[in-house]
Amino acid sequence: MTVKGVAILGSTGSIGRSALAVVDAHPTRLKVVSLAAGENASLLADQVRRYCPDFVAMAGGKGIDRLKAACGPNLPAVGTGTEGLIAVATQRSADIVICASAGTAGLEAVLAAIEAGKTIALANKEVLVMAGELVTAAARRRGVAILPVDSEHNAIHQCLHARPASEVRRIILTASGGPFRDCQADALERVSPEAALQHPTWQMGRKITIDSATLMNKGLEVIEAHWLFGVTADQIDVVIHPQSIVHSLVELIDGSVIAQLGVTDMRLPIQYACSYPDRWDGSLPSLDLARAGRLEFLEPAHDRFPCLGLAYDALRAGGTLPVVLNAANEIAVGAFLDHKLGFMAIPRVIQKAMQAHDSQPVSTLQVVRRADAWARQYARDAAHELELTV
Amino acid sequence: MTVKGVAILGSTGSIGRSALAVVDAHPTRLKVVSLAAGENASLLADQVRRYCPDFVAMAGGKGIDRLKAACGPNLPAVGTGTEGLIAVATQRSADIVICASAGTAGLEAVLAAIEAGKTIALANKEVLVMAGELVTAAARRRGVAILPVDSEHNAIHQCLHARPASEVRRIILTASGGPFRDCQADALERVSPEAALQHPTWQMGRKITIDSATLMNKGLEVIEAHWLFGVTADQIDVVIHPQSIVHSLVELIDGSVIAQLGVTDMRLPIQYACSYPDRWDGSLPSLDLARAGRLEFLEPAHDRFPCLGLAYDALRAGGTLPVVLNAANEIAVGAFLDHKLGFMAIPRVIQKAMQAHDSQPVSTLQVVRRADAWARQYARDAAHELELTV
Repeated sequence: MTVKGVAILGSTGSIGRSALAVVDAHPTRLKVVSLAAGENASLLADQVRRYCPDFVAMAGGKGIDRLKAACGPNLPAVGTGTEGLIAVATQRSADIVICASAGTAGLEAVLAAIEAGKTIALANKEVLVMAGELVTAAARRRGVAILPVDSEHNAIHQCLHARPASEVRRIILTASGGPFRDCQADALERVSPEAALQHPTWQMGRKITIDSATLMNKGLEVIEAHWLFGVTADQIDVVIHPQSIVHSLVELIDGSVIAQLGVTDMRLPIQYACSYPDRWDGSLPSLDLARAGRLEFLEPAHDRFPCLGLAYDALRAGGTLPVVLNAANEIAVGAFLDHKLGFMAIPRVIQKAMQAHDSQPVSTLQVVRRADAWARQYARDAAHELELTV
Repeated sequence: MTVKGVAILGSTGSIGRSALAVVDAHPTRLKVVSLAAGENASLLADQVRRYCPDFVAMAGGKGIDRLKAACGPNLPAVGTGTEGLIAVATQRSADIVICASAGTAGLEAVLAAIEAGKTIALANKEVLVMAGELVTAAARRRGVAILPVDSEHNAIHQCLHARPASEVRRIILTASGGPFRDCQADALERVSPEAALQHPTWQMGRKITIDSATLMNKGLEVIEAHWLFGVTADQIDVVIHPQSIVHSLVELIDGSVIAQLGVTDMRLPIQYACSYPDRWDGSLPSLDLARAGRLEFLEPAHDRFPCLGLAYDALRAGGTLPVVLNAANEIAVGAFLDHKLGFMAIPRVIQKAMQAHDSQPVSTLQVVRRADAWARQYARDAAHELELTV
């Protein structure tokens, strides 16, 4: 059995920790070779002691100082910032790079990993939303697989099972619908960050939990699905499925629908990406359908959750508009979490930014970065203006 | 585009007519070359006029006489009995043989078609229940594909999508549960044939509709699944799913579950078998999950539906016991439809026959035929004894 070397960008986050649990379950198949974290030096130090990586990175120098203090003489080689991330992602002994760093920081590192021929296990949404064209073109050129770790895209990947695109009629992404699925429009205006952070089925980070409540998370996934599976916006549907047991579905041209189901445990898609193209027997719990009892499906309410429609608009318009959608959303969600913006003002900020933006073709990473910076500044100003509505 | 020649055993039955609807939808891809029917000469004559087959067969000479009268000078070459069926199934220009004849009559024809190298689209349950060992061994030896047309096994075939057996943990067959799913045990004793013929989701023939009400249909499918997919009885589960939208599921070794869903229309699995390994864009309706709304799953009630457990017993015991199960069931269902046996006496007759049977290895078709004949006689006697219970 060959041991696969694993690099993890974002090892102290929720996905990163699940990835390490997968490594724990398969010690003869997986070996951690490098880890990158943001600020959590104490947890990264624990991980260094346990997995003995060859290289670690943190966002800034202060984190490294705390890491040095915690690790003592056992500290491996270290790096910081974008260069540190790139070094983690391109370690010679890494076969697979699990990209689970938050936000846009991982973009350069993912592109570098692709150039270095690494298999990409992608859990970071921004990479494809912002630079899907650049990333997928690079992966095609280098013959590198991008394996989605997001449960929905991972489900689609399993359903497709290398079926040709000509056999696919549409992709159906399921969405839990978030905690406010049945909320009236006026009640949505008064939603608090605390209420929005209570997700019904998945335990996730704060930003993605809010994205789940606004359905922007699903909107970003629609854009990702376009890049991952080569389908148009018209070929991607969203259905609300509160139980989150059907992770997503593919309708084939003859009308047959293939679905992937499972328990809501991120170790499942992470292990799939690590084992691909094989599957490994696992310690993961089986799905008990009769115990689940009932699976429900409903149309998404576009009027009450306009973020989903905005994402479709951005995908259809193309160019840098998805970059603006993503950046404006991040700023607006931050302002909402800081109690500075109302829940329904999040889509308003995004829409204003999209309307004001002068879209350009995504030819280089510089174009992406410029649109991203513009949108953040614009959204900050717009959120400030809307602050009164809270 | 190469045109596939299609032979249909059982062209005037429910599956046969759906198969011809698939031919109608794909006239440049499929051509009817031969047809076999039981007794329905007038419908077969219509089919002869419409599809101009090279050869047709009917069960007996009287049917042929009526067919001759109806067709006049346009009558193709004809045959009767087992020889007629074999001639239909082995027509030189046939690429695929759709085996949808009722009961055990098609057994020799299917084996002959396999020997002639034809692809088998199998809709007849008895073929694998009675002679699974002989049929699958012949198919392996000749390198012939057996493509299941039953919606459940077709679903499993789609879910597996050529995945290796080593990746499969278990197969989960869905069952509508039939019209008496929620019936109390004492009410089941008094069920009438008329009530049992009201199937909630599928339109089918009379015998299979009763099998669906007793869950014997699912039991026979468990035995078929063993032969089709090389899984043990312990690897086959049954879950009640009243909506019949999830046609079946496969659990892989990592805990991931792949399901096939669709509308309840037999044209879908028939077209799949005809198009395999390709898929064809079709006129078939899409599944609207949000309109379906709710999918439910429950454990089967083995105490109220003992036929399912008897089928597992027969599969585990092996040899000629599945033959006895099937034959005794056919006799008991016939007696029930004739108002000569109670609904709950069906499993009693089968159980008595299984207990009285001296099982043998299925080494030849003769062994199968002998066990079948023995069980029919035994079940007739047993049913007669139990008649008082109606």
